[in-house]
Amino acid sequence: MPVTPARLVLHEVGLRDGLQMEHASVPTERKLQWIKELAETGLDILQIGSFVHPAKVPQMADTDELFRVLTAPGVLPEGVILSGLVLNEKGLERGMAAGVPMFCMGVSASETHSRKNTGMSVAEATDRIIAIAKLALSAGRGVQVSVQSAFGCGYEGHVPEERVLSIVRRYLDAGITSISLADTAGHAAPDAVESLFAAVRNLDPGAELTCHFHNTYGMGLANCIAAQRAGVTSFESSVAGLGGCPFTKVAGGNVCTEDFVHMLQRMGLRTDVRLGKIIAVAQDVAAFFGRELPGMVYKTGTLTSAV
Amino acid sequence: MPVTPARLVLHEVGLRDGLQMEHASVPTERKLQWIKELAETGLDILQIGSFVHPAKVPQMADTDELFRVLTAPGVLPEGVILSGLVLNEKGLERGMAAGVPMFCMGVSASETHSRKNTGMSVAEATDRIIAIAKLALSAGRGVQVSVQSAFGCGYEGHVPEERVLSIVRRYLDAGITSISLADTAGHAAPDAVESLFAAVRNLDPGAELTCHFHNTYGMGLANCIAAQRAGVTSFESSVAGLGGCPFTKVAGGNVCTEDFVHMLQRMGLRTDVRLGKIIAVAQDVAAFFGRELPGMVYKTGTLTSAV
Repeated sequence: MPVTPARLVLHEVGLRDGLQMEHASVPTERKLQWIKELAETGLDILQIGSFVHPAKVPQMADTDELFRVLTAPGVLPEGVILSGLVLNEKGLERGMAAGVPMFCMGVSASETHSRKNTGMSVAEATDRIIAIAKLALSAGRGVQVSVQSAFGCGYEGHVPEERVLSIVRRYLDAGITSISLADTAGHAAPDAVESLFAAVRNLDPGAELTCHFHNTYGMGLANCIAAQRAGVTSFESSVAGLGGCPFTKVAGGNVCTEDFVHMLQRMGLRTDVRLGKIIAVAQDVAAFFGRELPGMVYKTGTLTSAV
Repeated sequence: MPVTPARLVLHEVGLRDGLQMEHASVPTERKLQWIKELAETGLDILQIGSFVHPAKVPQMADTDELFRVLTAPGVLPEGVILSGLVLNEKGLERGMAAGVPMFCMGVSASETHSRKNTGMSVAEATDRIIAIAKLALSAGRGVQVSVQSAFGCGYEGHVPEERVLSIVRRYLDAGITSISLADTAGHAAPDAVESLFAAVRNLDPGAELTCHFHNTYGMGLANCIAAQRAGVTSFESSVAGLGGCPFTKVAGGNVCTEDFVHMLQRMGLRTDVRLGKIIAVAQDVAAFFGRELPGMVYKTGTLTSAV
């Protein structure tokens, strides 16, 4: 009997990772509109903000409000999960109060990146994230933990697999089994992706694995396919490929949601997703920012009969 | 003992497939400069023109001259192979006279595409191409035959695998074993790529397989990886990702050579290729056309120490 392939989970992170670099402030009303539209497309999880200090990332200042509005009964279709990023205890408190159903949090595999971002060593940051994750889990919230710079680091370059695996082991030992490996700097190539995710699956074949790639060097979709081959079932991506630096010509955004869904649908996967509606949001996002965004399918049109 | 992976062959087609859609005429001197620069990068084969009627594709009118100049002894480094596209007997005659070392030629797997391009059915076009290929082979020239629209057709949509395989069988029966499958309309997705090339390998495990993808929907590099998994050892690509339609915003060019080489080198493959020199040509090509071309790495820079 052939194995039924696992249903692939689509985690849209455009409203968080996509917007946090954008300096043009997006009004809360506009965010609400995009989120409501995306919630009707069949995407599974929408990451809509980050509980970071508003002075640090003004674009994320309305995160609490977004959760309060959108988690009210009947606002979004049944089954759509909202996720939010937290960096520390204070963020978790805010997120708990705002009713966040799923928390995302992580540490960097790079000592330099970790110290620059958190002032802590990787080991210390891991202790802290595990403590926060346990608090969220004991409150009945969903939790996904991540390892950032898992495939390389802008400061340190190569990141050895064992460094990533030692963090993953600590997550698993703490009973946290939803794990994302993030290619924060866009360094991943397909062979490294397949190798590292296979090694993680070896640690716990039952872990729920997520990948998070940036398309800085054009390898984003190739890396997603490599991840899928290694047993990854959940994919983070960003509408219109948002997430690059808006002040350069560099199209280094997240893997583009509609480009990824288009590829999946060409392969007969996730044909339930309403690609045409995602594309409409991508076009609206590009119009809002008044520039061409990295996504390709929203410009070229699709080969599938997008609805 | 681990199997030594086959050396991957890089076939640059920017000067032919990349330029033929461009209306801005590229002076012969400029082409010669680009070709000479590319010939010093370690790319294996350079496709520099097409023996089509000059009135039909004025950009290719200097193809005979390019071959005559460049095949003179000592003009290009040893070992670099020049290839040229021929469509018919007249083209072959011109190519023979111009000293073409390697001929590329093909038929479409789509009846509609075949009739529109050649006025012939697929079966008739296959007869003709096999006859031309045999002439070239018997003259001691290299020959690569292709199946165009192998993964889908702009007119007919889906192209069944069996239609492609029946053409490949005819090539193999005629003793022609260097075979390229071309995704002329950018329809290929990784699962179809892997499946079709595996089926071709099944017909003749010794055949030398080449892939030719366009990056219309962002799947180009993912398709190259899928092809490599299925045993493809030769890859056609275009410097700067040339090959899209210059009058639209659509970045639907060929797979970009320097993006592909960059990915390979991240995977430890073809580290002999001088990526930095390819990037320099890409930048010069983009400057010549005065617009941003689809390639990413020539804009972002590289993660490898490109030389």
